[in-house]
Amino acid sequence: MKFTDEELIVVKKLEILKNEAGSHSPGIFTFRQKLPEVEIKIDACFLSNPYATELFIEYFNKEILETGKIRDLLECYPSQNSVIAEILAEFLAINPKQIFIGNGAIEIIQAVIHNFTEKKIMINIPTFSSYYEYVKEGVEVVYNELSKAEDYSLDVEHYIAKVKFHRPDTIVLINPNNPNGAYIRLVDVQRILDELWFVKNIIVDESFIHFAYENKSYQLVSLANLVEEHPNLIVIKSMSKDFGVAGIRAGYGIMKQEYVQQLLNNGYLWNSNGLAEYFFRLYARSDFAMRYDILRVKYIVETLEFIKELRQLPYIKVYPSMANFVLIELTNGIMASEFVAKLLITYGIYIRTCDDKIGLQGQFIRLASRSRKENNYIIESLKSCLEMNFVLDLIDERAV
Amino acid sequence: MKFTDEELIVVKKLEILKNEAGSHSPGIFTFRQKLPEVEIKIDACFLSNPYATELFIEYFNKEILETGKIRDLLECYPSQNSVIAEILAEFLAINPKQIFIGNGAIEIIQAVIHNFTEKKIMINIPTFSSYYEYVKEGVEVVYNELSKAEDYSLDVEHYIAKVKFHRPDTIVLINPNNPNGAYIRLVDVQRILDELWFVKNIIVDESFIHFAYENKSYQLVSLANLVEEHPNLIVIKSMSKDFGVAGIRAGYGIMKQEYVQQLLNNGYLWNSNGLAEYFFRLYARSDFAMRYDILRVKYIVETLEFIKELRQLPYIKVYPSMANFVLIELTNGIMASEFVAKLLITYGIYIRTCDDKIGLQGQFIRLASRSRKENNYIIESLKSCLEMNFVLDLIDERAV
Repeated sequence: MKFTDEELIVVKKLEILKNEAGSHSPGIFTFRQKLPEVEIKIDACFLSNPYATELFIEYFNKEILETGKIRDLLECYPSQNSVIAEILAEFLAINPKQIFIGNGAIEIIQAVIHNFTEKKIMINIPTFSSYYEYVKEGVEVVYNELSKAEDYSLDVEHYIAKVKFHRPDTIVLINPNNPNGAYIRLVDVQRILDELWFVKNIIVDESFIHFAYENKSYQLVSLANLVEEHPNLIVIKSMSKDFGVAGIRAGYGIMKQEYVQQLLNNGYLWNSNGLAEYFFRLYARSDFAMRYDILRVKYIVETLEFIKELRQLPYIKVYPSMANFVLIELTNGIMASEFVAKLLITYGIYIRTCDDKIGLQGQFIRLASRSRKENNYIIESLKSCLEMNFVLDLIDERAV
Repeated sequence: MKFTDEELIVVKKLEILKNEAGSHSPGIFTFRQKLPEVEIKIDACFLSNPYATELFIEYFNKEILETGKIRDLLECYPSQNSVIAEILAEFLAINPKQIFIGNGAIEIIQAVIHNFTEKKIMINIPTFSSYYEYVKEGVEVVYNELSKAEDYSLDVEHYIAKVKFHRPDTIVLINPNNPNGAYIRLVDVQRILDELWFVKNIIVDESFIHFAYENKSYQLVSLANLVEEHPNLIVIKSMSKDFGVAGIRAGYGIMKQEYVQQLLNNGYLWNSNGLAEYFFRLYARSDFAMRYDILRVKYIVETLEFIKELRQLPYIKVYPSMANFVLIELTNGIMASEFVAKLLITYGIYIRTCDDKIGLQGQFIRLASRSRKENNYIIESLKSCLEMNFVLDLIDERAV
């Protein structure tokens, strides 16, 4: 990729910012503070349903801002963990004592890995890095490398055999997986649960499950109700992606009663904030739930359209995904970090390189689906960015 | 106290609610959900500066609501822990690597006690219960019982001797203390730090320090800048009380760099929410800081006035306090739980019984100072409630 001198300074700053953020992308507030010269038009790094955000804001305006209830949300202590769990219990049809409320799913990941993983954890890679980063000293990590030849999807039989061989006390499945969006069908997850009954903790992270489906009615498929039957199952659910409210920090875990009790016994008392409590109360209401589900399906359909259009673009390979993002491999010798910088500087589109993801071989980016209008702009920008690169390379070759 | 049959049902429900909340008071949202028949006019259970809440809301309206930036706060991931620490560092004149951002001070208490307390902790009682509740299995708790005869204030020499005798690895000082508001002067805390250099962790919880002072200019006195010199010092700071934003969940800890690093190494990445990040950015701004300090002093002066008026009331003993609340002992045979119920049912004032506080001998309530107008209403209500009780008792006696 070609950069002007001015652009190169931005590329350098971008690199520093990324390094400071470790194995995650710098957030948009950090970004604005440290790179004010770049205007982000579209944050396609950010994996959320924008229509759900709008729906939440509609309710929030009407019920919280216009009524003046915002003062209470800011000023007063939120309810305790178990009180919020009770609110969700009826809606989810789950025993409230099996629900643990988290300050974002990440807090639950941390709590579970710190408290219940004892000796050995098996993690598929590529994956969401916190699962291996949060492992405590002395815990062995066994990686199950997903195969590029199989588009980084899970080979269920091979997986079961590997777990039986290594005997970890904790295994982690993200379904659909991040960063590639590969989905494990319910029948396969159930087979894993049946075969691996001896594993102490089977963590299934369903943070992107609202975007997956098994039939054309796009019905939601979740394991949340299987905890009763499989007490080694721990379902972790972020609300940030499906509901587009990452700033609120809301998530929950479904796990056996003893685990919830153990966590609450000496901690996690007021770990929700006022807005998160309002969100959870809303989430459990049927009027909101019905309107949300329409937007969930709308977003799935548009994401499918977006992925179809991405597949038409040259010089990239789009991996199969059942999430609201796609893993894209850059072919034709393009460097991911340079492509990300170019797209940001020229088009104001912020996407994620996957350079920091262990288990990926090649130049990869991860791209989120946004609103239809934003997706159209992303497609146009990617197209001209990819073609421009090809033209410049041609000119270069002739100059030589 | 006398109750009608209808009131007795409320008294019973109140008792259940309190039991469910454990050693804390049920929050106001829980309260409204479970006891809708009672209208809380004044939450005097809630220890915060209401003028600071108003100031925050003024900024929040102008900068977040009117500009439409609220969407970003709700939708986007907040910045990482270390980024927010950097924002505070300059304002506090502290090395950013010594700052750990918490989802409320309670998260920091949990993190410190879980990670750095190894064998033995010494805790003054009465105190904020989480300090002993969060202790992990296998850790010994030594209680230092504060003396009623000395109004539950700390006897510094006796304390130092006791720590030297028991050799705990962690000691906790809440300054001013909760639930009584007793203050330890800077010179005494410094003496403790000097004498107890061998203690691994000296936790000083300054959650109420903004309401204390050592001279008539009401200047803020804090240990935050002593961590460099005393690496065993851990200063914990809630923002909920002084800034009146408990619903936002914001707090920070100042501790040696290795501790912050150890916590961030495998956790606490996105533990602030969007509103908390906005709050922290505001907190570090001089325009906000200057306006806030005027309100801090205004509130201190009004609280002093409130305490003076409370001292005029019959049948109670008001303990000395340098916080924004007072511990009150009910004399004349009044039961704390009944008094709290009566005040709630008849006057809509919600206060805290201290029945669950270990280390208190007698019938105690804790009463927060609110706005001057609310304080006036509280004084009037307390007065008639106490006098009415006396009159009814007299009638009773005559009837017998």
